[in-house]
Amino acid sequence: MTATDKLDVLAELSRILEERKESDDDKSYVASLHRKGLNKILEKVGEEAVETVLAAKDAETSGDNRDVIYETADLWFHSLVMLSHLGEDASAVLSELARRFDMSGLEEKASRNKH
Amino acid sequence: MTATDKLDVLAELSRILEERKESDDDKSYVASLHRKGLNKILEKVGEEAVETVLAAKDAETSGDNRDVIYETADLWFHSLVMLSHLGEDASAVLSELARRFDMSGLEEKASRNKH
Amino acid sequence: MTATDKLDVLAELSRILEERKESDDDKSYVASLHRKGLNKILEKVGEEAVETVLAAKDAETSGDNRDVIYETADLWFHSLVMLSHLGEDASAVLSELARRFDMSGLEEKASRNKH
Amino acid sequence: MTATDKLDVLAELSRILEERKESDDDKSYVASLHRKGLNKILEKVGEEAVETVLAAKDAETSGDNRDVIYETADLWFHSLVMLSHLGEDASAVLSELARRFDMSGLEEKASRNKH
Repeated sequence: MTATDKLDVLAELSRILEERKESDDDKSYVASLHRKGLNKILEKVGEEAVETVLAAKDAETSGDNRDVIYETADLWFHSLVMLSHLGEDASAVLSELARRFDMSGLEEKASRNKH
Repeated sequence: MTATDKLDVLAELSRILEERKESDDDKSYVASLHRKGLNKILEKVGEEAVETVLAAKDAETSGDNRDVIYETADLWFHSLVMLSHLGEDASAVLSELARRFDMSGLEEKASRNKH
Repeated sequence: MTATDKLDVLAELSRILEERKESDDDKSYVASLHRKGLNKILEKVGEEAVETVLAAKDAETSGDNRDVIYETADLWFHSLVMLSHLGEDASAVLSELARRFDMSGLEEKASRNKH
Repeated sequence: MTATDKLDVLAELSRILEERKESDDDKSYVASLHRKGLNKILEKVGEEAVETVLAAKDAETSGDNRDVIYETADLWFHSLVMLSHLGEDASAVLSELARRFDMSGLEEKASRNKH
């Protein structure tokens, strides 16, 4: 078992997003989104939602799910950039989902991940 | 450490979604979405994306992030129902995100969660 | 030639929307949208955009365009309610389209329709 | 009264869109959209819907409607390219709107414009 094994993908991604938000690296896509501001980030959330819908329709016909997985990853990624822009991260969404499905142990854990 | 502590919210949610997909419980919202079909599920993905965008704009003005967290949870939830309808679950999205950010240990784990 | 024949559909629709905006008729759908406010109207614009996209994908497969025409009408209708909420009407959109395509005579006419 | 005065903006725009659909002009944006196919056109419809929603939120705060008019023109324009791709034009949408609001004289006229 490796060290990273104990972390989860969204916690690690939230950490990366936080780091890049503060970055002044001209080559960072995430930093450039923050510089362009919330409207630009929300345009991307909207675009990825439509691309997800189109990919799902095509997957239904073709039976090939690769594009819809890729577009959903894009959609989640940009919604995490949006949350980061507003000072939140994935743990807030996971806590809300845990609350709805009464996963009390999990909610506690998601909340711990944040702090 | 409790038993649920070792699981994560998305893995547990994927398990619940799979169970309800097969359910013939008339009161299950998830089962009703599957019965109505992919277009209905995709309409919900689109609706929740727009509500997320509106909530983010309002959060920017008010400083209150509760609605945008709630709407993002709705967006992720309905995109998981979409993936479930197509025979996928959260682990496929997490593997794709791990791959992009070169989290090799995490990708392996996300992939294991599925099987 | 009838009296209504000289008007066009969007000018007449703009007139109807203006009338219903001011209405306190509980049964008016347009009046109820205005009472619920801009967010509710924009949710409808977003919903109809997604339904238009889904109907276009289905039309491409089936060859039947009826649903995509119906959903596009819904999309334009709700975008006109949005403009009405903000104090504008169809003539502003038509003037902008005329300007882009250098229809100088038409732009003048669209502008006249407004006043 | 000029010759163009008798036409309306959407009928003229539909004529232009039909012409460019058939064009093999590399510089035509409309021709390039048709070559890229329906998914690309629908991505643009989705993008413009989100930009319209964002512009409307900003207009509500600023009182300046110029961007929301511009984005609505973009949304209508790309939905007309979509209809053109499927073999329809603005007259189908106008007939549907006329039918809903019982503008019988207008429906007849919108239908005449098409043929």
